[in-house]
This record gives sequence, C-alpha cells and structure tokens, in this order.
Amino acid sequence: MIKNKNGILFVISGPSGVGKGTITKALFEKISNVLLSVSVTTRIPRNGEIQGNNYFFVNIHEFEQMINDDGFLEWAQVYQNYYGTPRKFVMENLARKRDIILEIDTQGALQVKKNMPQGIFIFIAPPNVAELAKRIKLRGKDSEESIQTRLSAVKQELEHMKFYDYVVVNEDLELAVEKVKAIIIAERCRYGNILMEGSS
Amino acid sequence: MIKNKNGILFVISGPSGVGKGTITKALFEKISNVLLSVSVTTRIPRNGEIQGNNYFFVNIHEFEQMINDDGFLEWAQVYQNYYGTPRKFVMENLARKRDIILEIDTQGALQVKKNMPQGIFIFIAPPNVAELAKRIKLRGKDSEESIQTRLSAVKQELEHMKFYDYVVVNEDLELAVEKVKAIIIAERCRYGNILMEGSS
Repeated sequence: MIKNKNGILFVISGPSGVGKGTITKALFEKISNVLLSVSVTTRIPRNGEIQGNNYFFVNIHEFEQMINDDGFLEWAQVYQNYYGTPRKFVMENLARKRDIILEIDTQGALQVKKNMPQGIFIFIAPPNVAELAKRIKLRGKDSEESIQTRLSAVKQELEHMKFYDYVVVNEDLELAVEKVKAIIIAERCRYGNILMEGSS
Repeated sequence: MIKNKNGILFVISGPSGVGKGTITKALFEKISNVLLSVSVTTRIPRNGEIQGNNYFFVNIHEFEQMINDDGFLEWAQVYQNYYGTPRKFVMENLARKRDIILEIDTQGALQVKKNMPQGIFIFIAPPNVAELAKRIKLRGKDSEESIQTRLSAVKQELEHMKFYDYVVVNEDLELAVEKVKAIIIAERCRYGNILMEGSS
C-alpha cells in the first residue's frame, strides 16, 4: 500500500489585489481534504464570527506571550491589531496528514518560508502590472494615494517570485483555480511525500 | 507577461502490466499541447502503421549508426528488433516549447534519466503486487512461466521508484489519469519553468 507521509502546507501568496483570496475561496469548492489555516488575532470579533472558525481571538497579552514562545510561523501588526499564523495548529494538522492552505501577503509568506521551508509556496501573479492596477482601482477599497503606493509595492513584490515553488498567473479565475488544484494533487504524488507499506 | 521557457519531457513508466499504456492513451484525450514521443524501430511496419506517426522505421544499419552518433536517449533490443527514443526529435520539440510524453518500461526510463535528468519522471505503481499479478494474468498475453518471471521482476522494479519525481497509484484509471494530468499542469507552473518578459 502506498500512502501519504504527512500533510503538506500550501502557502498561497502574491501582490495585493491579485485575487488570491478569490482563488482560495473557489479552490475550497473544488478540492477535498484541505483545511484553511486559522489566524490568531487581537482584533474584536465581528458579528457572526466564531472563535476557532474565522479566527482565534486573543488579547494583546496572550498574543505577545505567543510571540515570546515562538508560537507563530509569521505574525504582523496591522494598525492597532496583531495577526499571526499559529505554529501549533499547523504542525498538529500536518501530523494528522491534513493538508493546509495558508493565504497570506508576500511579507508573511517570506516569514513562513524561513520557519517552514518544506512548505509549498505558490505565487499568484497578475497577467501584467497594468491589469493589476485596473483591478486595484475597480475593487474601490483604496484611496488614490494608497493605489500609487500599492503599485510601486507590486513591482517590488514581483521580485520575490523567485522564493516560490510555483507561479500561477491569474488571467482567468477558473483556469487559475484549476492550476492551484493541480499543484495540490501533484504535490501529494511527489516521491518524497509518499510512504510504502509492506506490499502483499 | 509570464510564459514557459521550454517544453518539458514527461516520462511515464512503471512495472509491466501496471496500465501505463492505458493511462497515457486516456491522458491524450484530457490534455492539450502535449506530443507523444515517436520511437525509432527496425521492425517491419504493420498494416496501417505510418512512418513518423507510429514509429520511425529504419534498417539495422541506420539504427546502429544512430547508436554510434549518440542519437538515442535510450534504446533496447527486443528479440530481433531494436527500439529507441531519438534524442533529436525530443530536443527539437522541447526547444519549440512542446511538452513531450514518453511512455516506457523502467529500464528505458533509467537510461533516459541519465541522459535527460531535467525530465519529469512519473512512476505508475500498482495498488499492491497481488493486484498487479491479477492484471497480468487477466490480460492473457503471457505464459505461466513468463507471469512468474514478471512478478519477481515487479518487486525489483518497485525498488526503482526512488529515482522518480512522482508516484501515481493506478487503483482507479480515471483518478490516475487526473493525477498525471495534474502533474503536467503543475510542472508547467514551476518557478524554474517560467520566464518573465518586461511587464508594462
């Protein structure tokens, strides 16, 4: 019998506005046996958010304690709030042979890479920078100033591509989801990820 | 713009009787932009076989000349006939960004690996050896003696698995085809296989 050794951590990242959140969401409807990584945060739960489902909600002291205990694969402060990926949640699920998807910005992805180089890092790339600019403007979340800052950041982020195992261009959502799904299926078949048990 | 650098050579191999031919045939109905490697042989064309389509038919002297010219990625003698994978056909198509599928026995795959370590090697594995024995008997091509010889060979071939990049267990044909297809799609997204052209 041939089985999988361990779960695999798939990190889905890319420039802001590239559509990695949309891809990740669509992916979960197309593939089974994957688990979304749940972040720890100090921000206040919104209506309907469930502890341990959307986030693990903690207070600032608890968060800082986890930093001191090396409890995060990555963490960041965004305005007044902390967000982090709990190492224990990831490690325990991988040991149970559950594959995990972590969707994260490129800064976070690089931190995770340092802590878990055995993860599989997938970079979602825009078809070209002009197209990305259009998307950032279209979604209308951002001010003009923030759009300009983001665009120069995008060029820098594209430089990070070389730290990734795979690059998926998000030109067409359905196609991009199919490619990420293919990467997950393929990685499960990698020689290094399988285990042979006594064949009879 | 992000494009592929070169074509990729996918080598599909595995023990005799494991179903690699069936998988390869079904694969071609499910994926585009792949080309089947065409072998060179000294055997006489059968009715309906077309030069350059099924095989490149040559005489023994021509074949031996190709051996001397290092013209094969692998070759073998089977009974009175020679068979080989022409290096030039593969290299020229890879340079034209055509992905190539080569379906071959495990001996041949190891020869190809020596000559083209950058190829992607996919091992088709039986769910277990008992199941493989059943399949070899069912297809009825082989004598009892040959069945016994093959079974002991299978155990040896499973030892070769470690030289491969991927292992696909052929428990269910459709699932196995989907996995090989996923490997092809994923490899096309590998960071090492892509090329960035000036983004505008």
